[in-house]
Amino acid sequence: MLELNEMNNEMMKAGTLIEALPYIQRFSGKVVVVKYGGSAMLDEELKYNVIKDVALLKLIGMKPIIVHGGGKEISKWVKLSGKEAEFYKGLRITDKETMEIAEMVLNKVNKELVGLMQKMEMNAVGICGKDANMLHVEKRMPDGKDIGYVGNVTSVNTDILYTLMDAGFIPVIAPIGMDENFDSYNINADDAACAVAKAMKAEKLVFLTDIEGVFVDPTNKKTLISEMDVNTAREFIANGVVGGGMLPKLTNCVEAIDQGVSRVHILDGRVAHCLLLEFFTEKGIGTAILKEPLF
Amino acid sequence: MLELNEMNNEMMKAGTLIEALPYIQRFSGKVVVVKYGGSAMLDEELKYNVIKDVALLKLIGMKPIIVHGGGKEISKWVKLSGKEAEFYKGLRITDKETMEIAEMVLNKVNKELVGLMQKMEMNAVGICGKDANMLHVEKRMPDGKDIGYVGNVTSVNTDILYTLMDAGFIPVIAPIGMDENFDSYNINADDAACAVAKAMKAEKLVFLTDIEGVFVDPTNKKTLISEMDVNTAREFIANGVVGGGMLPKLTNCVEAIDQGVSRVHILDGRVAHCLLLEFFTEKGIGTAILKEPLF
Amino acid sequence: MLELNEMNNEMMKAGTLIEALPYIQRFSGKVVVVKYGGSAMLDEELKYNVIKDVALLKLIGMKPIIVHGGGKEISKWVKLSGKEAEFYKGLRITDKETMEIAEMVLNKVNKELVGLMQKMEMNAVGICGKDANMLHVEKRMPDGKDIGYVGNVTSVNTDILYTLMDAGFIPVIAPIGMDENFDSYNINADDAACAVAKAMKAEKLVFLTDIEGVFVDPTNKKTLISEMDVNTAREFIANGVVGGGMLPKLTNCVEAIDQGVSRVHILDGRVAHCLLLEFFTEKGIGTAILKEPLF
Amino acid sequence: MLELNEMNNEMMKAGTLIEALPYIQRFSGKVVVVKYGGSAMLDEELKYNVIKDVALLKLIGMKPIIVHGGGKEISKWVKLSGKEAEFYKGLRITDKETMEIAEMVLNKVNKELVGLMQKMEMNAVGICGKDANMLHVEKRMPDGKDIGYVGNVTSVNTDILYTLMDAGFIPVIAPIGMDENFDSYNINADDAACAVAKAMKAEKLVFLTDIEGVFVDPTNKKTLISEMDVNTAREFIANGVVGGGMLPKLTNCVEAIDQGVSRVHILDGRVAHCLLLEFFTEKGIGTAILKEPLF
Amino acid sequence: MLELNEMNNEMMKAGTLIEALPYIQRFSGKVVVVKYGGSAMLDEELKYNVIKDVALLKLIGMKPIIVHGGGKEISKWVKLSGKEAEFYKGLRITDKETMEIAEMVLNKVNKELVGLMQKMEMNAVGICGKDANMLHVEKRMPDGKDIGYVGNVTSVNTDILYTLMDAGFIPVIAPIGMDENFDSYNINADDAACAVAKAMKAEKLVFLTDIEGVFVDPTNKKTLISEMDVNTAREFIANGVVGGGMLPKLTNCVEAIDQGVSRVHILDGRVAHCLLLEFFTEKGIGTAILKEPLF
Amino acid sequence: MLELNEMNNEMMKAGTLIEALPYIQRFSGKVVVVKYGGSAMLDEELKYNVIKDVALLKLIGMKPIIVHGGGKEISKWVKLSGKEAEFYKGLRITDKETMEIAEMVLNKVNKELVGLMQKMEMNAVGICGKDANMLHVEKRMPDGKDIGYVGNVTSVNTDILYTLMDAGFIPVIAPIGMDENFDSYNINADDAACAVAKAMKAEKLVFLTDIEGVFVDPTNKKTLISEMDVNTAREFIANGVVGGGMLPKLTNCVEAIDQGVSRVHILDGRVAHCLLLEFFTEKGIGTAILKEPLF
Repeated sequence: MLELNEMNNEMMKAGTLIEALPYIQRFSGKVVVVKYGGSAMLDEELKYNVIKDVALLKLIGMKPIIVHGGGKEISKWVKLSGKEAEFYKGLRITDKETMEIAEMVLNKVNKELVGLMQKMEMNAVGICGKDANMLHVEKRMPDGKDIGYVGNVTSVNTDILYTLMDAGFIPVIAPIGMDENFDSYNINADDAACAVAKAMKAEKLVFLTDIEGVFVDPTNKKTLISEMDVNTAREFIANGVVGGGMLPKLTNCVEAIDQGVSRVHILDGRVAHCLLLEFFTEKGIGTAILKEPLF
Repeated sequence: MLELNEMNNEMMKAGTLIEALPYIQRFSGKVVVVKYGGSAMLDEELKYNVIKDVALLKLIGMKPIIVHGGGKEISKWVKLSGKEAEFYKGLRITDKETMEIAEMVLNKVNKELVGLMQKMEMNAVGICGKDANMLHVEKRMPDGKDIGYVGNVTSVNTDILYTLMDAGFIPVIAPIGMDENFDSYNINADDAACAVAKAMKAEKLVFLTDIEGVFVDPTNKKTLISEMDVNTAREFIANGVVGGGMLPKLTNCVEAIDQGVSRVHILDGRVAHCLLLEFFTEKGIGTAILKEPLF
Repeated sequence: MLELNEMNNEMMKAGTLIEALPYIQRFSGKVVVVKYGGSAMLDEELKYNVIKDVALLKLIGMKPIIVHGGGKEISKWVKLSGKEAEFYKGLRITDKETMEIAEMVLNKVNKELVGLMQKMEMNAVGICGKDANMLHVEKRMPDGKDIGYVGNVTSVNTDILYTLMDAGFIPVIAPIGMDENFDSYNINADDAACAVAKAMKAEKLVFLTDIEGVFVDPTNKKTLISEMDVNTAREFIANGVVGGGMLPKLTNCVEAIDQGVSRVHILDGRVAHCLLLEFFTEKGIGTAILKEPLF
Repeated sequence: MLELNEMNNEMMKAGTLIEALPYIQRFSGKVVVVKYGGSAMLDEELKYNVIKDVALLKLIGMKPIIVHGGGKEISKWVKLSGKEAEFYKGLRITDKETMEIAEMVLNKVNKELVGLMQKMEMNAVGICGKDANMLHVEKRMPDGKDIGYVGNVTSVNTDILYTLMDAGFIPVIAPIGMDENFDSYNINADDAACAVAKAMKAEKLVFLTDIEGVFVDPTNKKTLISEMDVNTAREFIANGVVGGGMLPKLTNCVEAIDQGVSRVHILDGRVAHCLLLEFFTEKGIGTAILKEPLF
Repeated sequence: MLELNEMNNEMMKAGTLIEALPYIQRFSGKVVVVKYGGSAMLDEELKYNVIKDVALLKLIGMKPIIVHGGGKEISKWVKLSGKEAEFYKGLRITDKETMEIAEMVLNKVNKELVGLMQKMEMNAVGICGKDANMLHVEKRMPDGKDIGYVGNVTSVNTDILYTLMDAGFIPVIAPIGMDENFDSYNINADDAACAVAKAMKAEKLVFLTDIEGVFVDPTNKKTLISEMDVNTAREFIANGVVGGGMLPKLTNCVEAIDQGVSRVHILDGRVAHCLLLEFFTEKGIGTAILKEPLF
Repeated sequence: MLELNEMNNEMMKAGTLIEALPYIQRFSGKVVVVKYGGSAMLDEELKYNVIKDVALLKLIGMKPIIVHGGGKEISKWVKLSGKEAEFYKGLRITDKETMEIAEMVLNKVNKELVGLMQKMEMNAVGICGKDANMLHVEKRMPDGKDIGYVGNVTSVNTDILYTLMDAGFIPVIAPIGMDENFDSYNINADDAACAVAKAMKAEKLVFLTDIEGVFVDPTNKKTLISEMDVNTAREFIANGVVGGGMLPKLTNCVEAIDQGVSRVHILDGRVAHCLLLEFFTEKGIGTAILKEPLF
């Protein structure tokens, strides 16, 4: 028999499951694209937590797709091969050799993630944008400058994603695409996630980041914005309220919603089980950008 | 932003969801038959709790079937119609008029339950064993005595159950069947639930009761048995350890397991969310009888 | 060997089957909704005849749906429970207790009919409008007066009907629905049959009644109208040619045709096998209201 | 309104339909192979009657297949081409030229029948045993004598039959097959019907003939046998009770039943609607040979 | 081991297969209607070659349909039956008896072709336009003159073609149709092929003829036109450049393209494997009429 | 018009296509596993040729699966990272770091191949044995010595292969698997191809090598064996006729045939279009090992 305090504890557990009920109901059968990166990708325990969260999303009927970056490993291997990493306005200058290394590293990261997911009984399949001719890109030319094999996604062939998901597999995507000459290009992982979410008309697009969310005043933690509608986000961008790494991310959010994604989340990947907390509890964490106006 | 104690609270919630993960994984796609009765059927709040639990089972991929009794309402309406309720060894002596009243009351209870489930967004359909020729019975003759239209289930035609479940409906069953002359018979709800569970090769059969479970010594609450294998249950029956209303219930449990049900639960329906607590937390509540030996 | 007069007899039988051929051809795969009530529901032999007719409709490829009323049994049980039956303009004033009794009686009648059909090897399933959230109603307010739980059908969720029919079952419907608060309401059986026929775009809607059909002059049996088009029916209503219980029935007919039913029949349920006679012989019996003009 | 004697008449019609009910129930979805020949093929009105019967079989859910012969037309065209028809023990001696004529005539008869069926709104498709490689034969050598292109069916490829029936078409078969060298052979139509019935595990195989059935004493019309089981038929053959054209037919019946056909009928094709009379009335006409013993 | 010159030979073979690759890719899954007639139907070896070509088309994923004529055999059998063949402006005057003979001969030719295809392991099924009510015709009245049972196709019911092709069979069509009275009519085989190609929205329609193609100047073999667009073909017709038997054929080509066929080929059936040469080699042979302008 | 010598040339092309016909017929729908490696992987033109061959196999209805190795690139990158490549009996000693590099290189090679196939309009998807939990391995211990992450395939989960092939994709497999702890292992590509072919019950398993085939006397090119049955191969192994790199390959061939593969080919990948030459011409090249005895 359960003791009284145990009983209270158990009751709280039941309450949590019941609290999750309407969210489970609402999200059942919906596609959620998770951009996986930052600390959640480096710390072993956080990595496990994220995957457990994704497993739960899948089990209760959501359809998760994971898009990941290569983190700091690309630079490490570029260096190992005797080259110097070069950047232009934050974008890696990517010649043929660098692209070859990027492709090696991104696919290695991809398969490591797949292996970890298999270990946790999630039936993942790792692909990149070259497989099934999925991600089509054009060369990215910041300020008209040719920085090599860095691409923007121009269209997404979703066949392989539906094939895998219909057969019960979880797609894990490395952000590499091909241009019209079938040359390989590196894609920013946030952009790739955004393009996939739009093409799949995802219910949710989630960015796992290393920040707590969007702040009205980044110097004041108390000004975190829990929810904002897409028009407010647009104003923030126009008025220069946000800046730094947050600007392209917020731009991505707005664009994703403009093209059919219902809700975009910027979550702090350093918080264990941030996905579950955001999706299945009333308070949520991080910042959500919504399609429909808040009031 | 979440305050620290809020954060702790939220973490516990995430922990609960994660704790449920392996159970969700194990039970996905499995049939669970819930015999619904006792206090859980009379108390408005408990009623809501049970239905919420069933809703969660359905949402996370289980296939619930509900079998209910008529509780004390049959006696009330028998009295109203001017008849005296008569019993033989605990079985209601059921002449034609009494059977007619039983059928009215059981179907009313059935549709009330369906209405309540619809209200809570669960797509239930109420049937009895006459529908689709589901429950076949033979007359029950305790000590060779004819007590009227009281039947034992001899076979179950599962067509309608698969039809409803495949279309996403939750079957709610009133325990009435027909003999080979197509006369209506009252069936003990525990027996009906057991017959359905066997025919559907259910993963789980749950009896919601008004007791806490099976005790080694019923006078000592500390002797509650959390789990026992089917052979132990058989010994308990043979050795007369259990008695009273528990004896036929435990006999049902043993028989269900012998015919393909994996696990039978005797749960205390007076505990809110007892289904969730038993299914998705490590401790569980009540008594479980298992197919395979415990050690 | 057959003797000559036997032979003649047999030839007539073959002739009957051949006469039925074009009708069978025309009706194959079509939905027919039968409002079952009146004498055909009270007399044992007529009851058997109706069910045999429905069985034949099913076997030759039609898709029958039965909607029934509760006849005089509701009043009997209301009285038994010590209440006085009250009416306003022919509508039963239905408080909570009366509604509870109505629900009991209607479901009992429903399951009796199902049992009888099973006995005759027809695979029937009895449901009411609460099952699968099928019949949605709003409170009926004659002259703005609140007469309790009496409802008009506002919409029909046909999912369960298609599920049952696709699996080969014959749906038998008790006329109970729910309003937006999920409270139970009694529905006039004619209205329920009409609503179901419209929602299913039925080929035929049949009212089994205790009259021979529509008369130009009800005092003169020779003025029975065999067929009329919907515009003539409209004129009859407008000009006050019909009255009494026939008025709402004819109004239902017109409305059903306006919303997609091809043909509505008012048949005399006191005539044995009236369904077969009307459907499969050239003369037919009763009154048919047709979509397309007669000439 | 119907007058009284009309009413009686109508009641008899309804009675006939109802009498047919259990037979319709029993035969639904079953394959019936009809060997069409003799007078029923020559007389225009009988031809129409047979086709109407087959139409009714199809409409009420049976799956008819028609196998026909070429009747007397082959001889006519052989003569026209200046050849002399020759026979050995009742089998046409069939050289290349005769086979060519037989193929022309049989296919003409086939398409005439198809045209007539289309005219009566039955969706027929005419094929011979060469189509879809359906009928495989070996040369028939009566007393070891080579009589040319006369074959016995050795196996049946049923693919095309299922393809056509699943798509709702009625197959009409001309009895021509091919040997292992893909040469064309004439097949006795009774034999072809028997082979098809066995391969399709038909419920019924019907021979439309110009006799009334099997007699104990062919000189005494009163000795017609309505039903006999297969063992009795075997004895009749062994004891020489039957002879003439009936012997191979009865042998075919026995063989068909031995290989899975449930019931074989020898019907008098000169009786209008003999198929309906035999299938849907209690008395039946002609002789039926049954799988299971009569008593 | 292969010797050097063998090796060269083998390399050429591989080259041929590789050259065919883009054509196979382009035509995969497309319908091609082949009008089979002329010498290719009379010469045994050419006949085999055509069938082998069709087999290859089928194997590499195209969907061939064959339409054939009766060649000179009809006249032969008309004469044999003692009638005189009569023509009006090149069209056979076709009374009932002549039509009967035409039907016999066309179906014989049909089944001979089917038998030959089966021999070469192609699963053909022979049908005429009466089967499955496929070809509907109206009487053809040249200059208002009634020349008997000669018809123009007015519509095509494609059900049986899809049924056969979906099941993997190759349809072989004899050009016979029925009018609204279900009388049989002879159809010009070119017209029938054209009607079927249009109804099936065929990728290709091929006429196997006894000429090399369309010439600018028929007296000068060097003026063969390899490809022309449909507008040029129209001009040729309007300007009287083409004449004789080529005029109706070219008119058919234009009409076919106007109604959805992509490309029509006039091939010389006397050239072995003309189908393969035209379809899978760069040069091609004969004349192709194209939907889209050439430049 | 074609000139005469052109005509001859064209006729030879048609002949080649026709010669291929029976092979296309025989192989349609069959799985063929191609182990891709050696020179065919290094030389740009040979690479294109192999892919064109695979494209043709796919187009004519075969189901190709490609398994590749990493060639000499792994050693190159091991060196680049500052490690010394070490071997034991020809097997690379593979510590964690080496395995990481192997995984990077093999996946890069995999995606390069996929990109090239996409460029040639073949819809390939690249996976390794970790995806969808496809290849399960156990540690390989030559002479009981632990040489690190080198594995033998113990079982193959074919789900992902059927999923991809049913959706029309060509699977391209990198030979990496996981053991029961979900650690990554390098697999010999020949072994991986053999394991996949067995699990898929492939019709053909092809090893693209840098030798011409199996010789009776390797020093005498004239002793090349074109075909041998599996028992002869077994004798060759037992008698030590073959040795060197050929021994494990031939052992693989024997094992593959013992477990359900019909035919194994050892082809010289240095010969352009060796796949087409072997599959679709009578002579063939290389050595074929057959299931059934040769005579």
